[in-house]
Amino acid sequence: MAGRRSFAELRARMSPEAQTQATVEAQRLGEEMDLAEMRRALKLSQEEIGQALQINQGSVAKIERRADMYVSTLRRFVEAMGGELEIVARFADHSVKIRNFSDLSEKAQG
Amino acid sequence: MAGRRSFAELRARMSPEAQTQATVEAQRLGEEMDLAEMRRALKLSQEEIGQALQINQGSVAKIERRADMYVSTLRRFVEAMGGELEIVARFADHSVKIRNFSDLSEKAQG
Repeated sequence: MAGRRSFAELRARMSPEAQTQATVEAQRLGEEMDLAEMRRALKLSQEEIGQALQINQGSVAKIERRADMYVSTLRRFVEAMGGELEIVARFADHSVKIRNFSDLSEKAQG
Repeated sequence: MAGRRSFAELRARMSPEAQTQATVEAQRLGEEMDLAEMRRALKLSQEEIGQALQINQGSVAKIERRADMYVSTLRRFVEAMGGELEIVARFADHSVKIRNFSDLSEKAQG
């Protein structure tokens, strides 16, 4: 996917120290974040995410403000940050990964 | 949320043995499933999910065939099965729960 390559290029321009620092910052902020917080913790700008997704900065801002979106949009956003989206259904005594959307991602990348 | 109450009523009509059996079956089938597999493992019919979501059986079938959907739709479907949706961004060395969509669910239930 072009988006992933673009992101890889952006990320490569960060020094290893800066990359580590971004990760540590993300951990420091705890385990639960919204998309904008996660992006800032990773020291990425809306412009950089926009480049990776081939959309403009304003569209990135709009996505970050949304309370609901397609799973595919959410996945692309997380992938633009260098992450992988995982969707889980939690039941009282077990958890199940939801597969539909993994398959979708594999197709999009293949 | 009306949907959750309807499901609770459906579920209450199952014997404790049947409920346990449904859970064990779900675990036996492994950790990764699509929505239809998860529903069948929990011994729920499309009609029962439809009742919980106040939509007809055909609409449930359509949702199960979709490769993409709104996070809110996915969440309601999982909740109709008695589960809770969790969305996680996995990075190389840490994971972050995505919060936007938890907030949304709290609002929908409140």
